[in-house]
Amino acid sequence: MKIALDAMGGDFAPQAAVDGAVLAAQELAGKAQIVLIGQESAVRPLLEQHGDAAATLELVPASQIIEMGEHPAKAYQQKQDSSIAVGYRMLHAGEVEAFCSAGNTGAMLVGAMFSVKPVPGVLRPAIANFVPKLHGGMGILLDVGANAECKPEMLEQFGELGSLYAQYVLGISNPKVGLMNLGEEEGKGTTLTQAVHQLLKVNPHVNFIGNIEGRDLFNEKADVIVCDGYTGNVMLKMAESVYDIMAEKQIRDPFFDKFNYEAVGGSPILGINDNAIIGHGVSTPVAICNMLLQGYQMAQSGISDQIKNTFKS
Amino acid sequence: MKIALDAMGGDFAPQAAVDGAVLAAQELAGKAQIVLIGQESAVRPLLEQHGDAAATLELVPASQIIEMGEHPAKAYQQKQDSSIAVGYRMLHAGEVEAFCSAGNTGAMLVGAMFSVKPVPGVLRPAIANFVPKLHGGMGILLDVGANAECKPEMLEQFGELGSLYAQYVLGISNPKVGLMNLGEEEGKGTTLTQAVHQLLKVNPHVNFIGNIEGRDLFNEKADVIVCDGYTGNVMLKMAESVYDIMAEKQIRDPFFDKFNYEAVGGSPILGINDNAIIGHGVSTPVAICNMLLQGYQMAQSGISDQIKNTFKS
Repeated sequence: MKIALDAMGGDFAPQAAVDGAVLAAQELAGKAQIVLIGQESAVRPLLEQHGDAAATLELVPASQIIEMGEHPAKAYQQKQDSSIAVGYRMLHAGEVEAFCSAGNTGAMLVGAMFSVKPVPGVLRPAIANFVPKLHGGMGILLDVGANAECKPEMLEQFGELGSLYAQYVLGISNPKVGLMNLGEEEGKGTTLTQAVHQLLKVNPHVNFIGNIEGRDLFNEKADVIVCDGYTGNVMLKMAESVYDIMAEKQIRDPFFDKFNYEAVGGSPILGINDNAIIGHGVSTPVAICNMLLQGYQMAQSGISDQIKNTFKS
Repeated sequence: MKIALDAMGGDFAPQAAVDGAVLAAQELAGKAQIVLIGQESAVRPLLEQHGDAAATLELVPASQIIEMGEHPAKAYQQKQDSSIAVGYRMLHAGEVEAFCSAGNTGAMLVGAMFSVKPVPGVLRPAIANFVPKLHGGMGILLDVGANAECKPEMLEQFGELGSLYAQYVLGISNPKVGLMNLGEEEGKGTTLTQAVHQLLKVNPHVNFIGNIEGRDLFNEKADVIVCDGYTGNVMLKMAESVYDIMAEKQIRDPFFDKFNYEAVGGSPILGINDNAIIGHGVSTPVAICNMLLQGYQMAQSGISDQIKNTFKS
């Protein structure tokens, strides 16, 4: 099995990318090979610094880079030899089983939509993120920004997508799906959440437990938390800021330490035909390594086939 | 000056209400008088327990109670001698300068809308909440739940209302108004946030600093944070849960301690003709006391006149 990494993506690329890839290669020795995609002249010397530890890594050349500030769709179209475009081509061709990048988020989404494409039946793929649970384990929150504005049927599908991920990748049996709302009662909320509540209530593919509130993000009520991309993005960034503030204050706690994005490394795009993960722009080698391990777990679990089967009907 | 308190409102009423009122009476001695509204047979004995400390408190009888679980509009209409209905009547009649309750939030909103009424020109009053700022002071977040669904012009007005409160009650000159969004760039967000951005940009009454993100809630970027009631409610409850988790873990920190709702005691309803504050259902005596002090500050500042003058034109 091969897991690909955009060696040029992220604020500290290619150094952090190469270092993280070497860490992941050690973890995945005998199970998967890491494929780095990027400018040979920049990446090769960094690999050589690692000596034997980098021996199993493969380097696929890509001459161009999509910068963080570039217009995603335009850059993706114009830079067909960029590390992101090459990565998606390899993913689509089945040459790698997962593609990870800490680069331009928008370009990663564009590639997901136009190269590997959404699974037939999925209205809109979503970006998922992980939330630590107070009494252990992880929950999954989606969408966190792919779709600022959503129709009820999209959120219903986010519930299904998150449920499949929780089941097949996180190993949670019969995951509880909660709808983020401003009150627990069925009639509460916006036109959107009221409509989604009715859809999820009768959806046979999910274990819908009803509305949850902002205070339930970290507790045991739901394993899968469904919301529109605007709300999910606000919540995610708020949680990150809490971690940053605690780090600044040097408050250490095993639970709050799990807020650190490094621990999971990246956010999968769910509802597309292959496994793609978007990392944080500031990704460190540890974050890159964990993103690659997550890519391996996704590929290993067969999650994208599970999604295809579910939405086939 | 008289500040009224619903003695029957909150999970621990009337005990917590009376104890909190006595604390506030001491703080406000010589400046304002506390008026308790509630069932005489329940409140009088509690007041007597406080002896001389309760001597300045006035008790206005109200025979009925709107329970926490009751339908707000129906209960408000049917229970005209409830502590909430009597409180609003006194407020509207000018017999008290502010009315505070930790009781049924919906009934407090109903009373605000139908008894003291919105300020002419205000489309929809909002519930505001306070957020501690990392480097000192408080910011104001609105709406946090009065209006789950909003039109652009409502959010524009929330910016104006929050700005006036920040200026006249919190004493922040030229408060910075930020729009909660999923990215900083002007074009980002939902149809709603994009439209609100354009309105606030040209609004001469506010110092609009543009879009802010979830990570900016606690930093210095904005003093007034504008969002729809659904999003604000989710953020508020999420912040409260962080405080609860830290308390459970016995992590103490001066900044995070300010997340405690007790520190401010209540959420003002902004955009109505008088000063009304809604307290947390679980309000302790300290929370009740701080809610009353906030009511005094609002009355003292003349904020509701400032709002009337601004929206008159």
